[in-house]
Amino acid sequence: MDINIEESRTADRRDAPIGVFDSGVGGLTVVREIMRNLPEERIVYFGDTARVPYGSKSQENVIRFSEQIIHFLQTQDVKAIVVACNTASALALDAVEQELDIPIVGVIGPGARMAVESTKNKRVGVIGTESTIRSRTYDRFIQALDSEIVVFGKACPLFVPLVEEGWLKDSVTEEVARRYLSELLRKDIDTLILGCTHYPLIRSLIEKLAGDQVHLVNPAYETAQELGRLLERMNLQNTGEHNAGREMYQFYVSDAAEKFGEFANSILPYDVTRARKINIEEY
Amino acid sequence: MDINIEESRTADRRDAPIGVFDSGVGGLTVVREIMRNLPEERIVYFGDTARVPYGSKSQENVIRFSEQIIHFLQTQDVKAIVVACNTASALALDAVEQELDIPIVGVIGPGARMAVESTKNKRVGVIGTESTIRSRTYDRFIQALDSEIVVFGKACPLFVPLVEEGWLKDSVTEEVARRYLSELLRKDIDTLILGCTHYPLIRSLIEKLAGDQVHLVNPAYETAQELGRLLERMNLQNTGEHNAGREMYQFYVSDAAEKFGEFANSILPYDVTRARKINIEEY
Repeated sequence: MDINIEESRTADRRDAPIGVFDSGVGGLTVVREIMRNLPEERIVYFGDTARVPYGSKSQENVIRFSEQIIHFLQTQDVKAIVVACNTASALALDAVEQELDIPIVGVIGPGARMAVESTKNKRVGVIGTESTIRSRTYDRFIQALDSEIVVFGKACPLFVPLVEEGWLKDSVTEEVARRYLSELLRKDIDTLILGCTHYPLIRSLIEKLAGDQVHLVNPAYETAQELGRLLERMNLQNTGEHNAGREMYQFYVSDAAEKFGEFANSILPYDVTRARKINIEEY
Repeated sequence: MDINIEESRTADRRDAPIGVFDSGVGGLTVVREIMRNLPEERIVYFGDTARVPYGSKSQENVIRFSEQIIHFLQTQDVKAIVVACNTASALALDAVEQELDIPIVGVIGPGARMAVESTKNKRVGVIGTESTIRSRTYDRFIQALDSEIVVFGKACPLFVPLVEEGWLKDSVTEEVARRYLSELLRKDIDTLILGCTHYPLIRSLIEKLAGDQVHLVNPAYETAQELGRLLERMNLQNTGEHNAGREMYQFYVSDAAEKFGEFANSILPYDVTRARKINIEEY
């Protein structure tokens, strides 16, 4: 019997998981969108909880951390990688992309493209961590697509700890958001990018303050869409045929696995029974 | 000419600096107290800004990080070490103390001793990071001194980002503090330990909410006092005679040295012109 090795290899690759990584728990909002939009895809998630947050770290360190994580994900035989962290997408994607022989998607590109499609008055706001905003990566991506668009960035360093405290629909969080957003809203923006993976968890509060005139862009959702198109184009979509008996979702962290599990269960449409801790510095 | 080598060595040791370390910038409140209270002592400070915060990390990692930092400080020939980080004092001091041939002081012991001296009704509150509170180290230190004292702990994870945002005298910070403290204040405590190095920077706000009935203990101040007594006892006090021409204060960080300098200058009675970045994982 003849076996078409090329085809069987492609079939194997289709069954392989997607590697998703973030500096901590925030990337789970991207995992959530992949689960919802690409339900047959298996996922290996790594959250760098020992070294979170990346937002205050140098580019050099963020690149080094990203390389270690990609090495780990490759040991899990992933077919594609999603950088579900705005800071790592901003600071490390260019550097790591060159070394890889599998596709890699960051959250900045898909978010920027949707913002360009969405804006009518060509005035776009971006909120994120200090490092994402300082890097002006969204600005560069957007202006490469349409140089007439003006981008206004605002760092919101208290949002992540507020979300991690669980104060999602809360008067303190609302007051903090009002302060952070007021400056941006005075700029007459019609589109606002939620440029940090934690922010979709306070989306309704941001939406309320931003008003109907401002369209919110969630890069987590756009990234899941982009990943879907990419897998289709490369014939790497999982059909689900061989998923039976395989672990669909695996979660790894570099520290404090229990705490991660709690947070994961509060936001995912899936019961995370186990997060495994690894020593990421060995990779 | 006879030289008394033993004596000359002791004299050299007296001129050596104190090593102080913290997970980031918070330990500068301890540096500030040492500068004020022991003005002839030279200081080498290390802030682990690449791996901050320790509060959410496991004991295993906090011990490993502390060991690396102590190795670095020893290359700077320090005569004593101050662990100016509540989390590292809580989780790592016992483990690292055994390996060292120079004295080491944490912030928990001095803070706990002052709380025991201060309380009349034997009801003491402690506020700190999640990890410090979860470890119950202040409780153990206090109860070892007086087992009748009841200790009430409360984790305040938003205080550090609020302080780092510079919102020190602020309505949002006050509302957050009111929520965190209300539970403790209902316990009828008469003493409250500021169990995280950032908290002295919002001391006046905490004082206002806690009221006159509650005595605040600042472990940073108590630690500087303890260090002074220890140096005296071991005949290691710097007389200041040989300080001329020597660098009094040196600052090292593991990441983002510029940002560190700004924060340092906002709280120290000294102009930090330079913070040097080192790769702490090499130690």
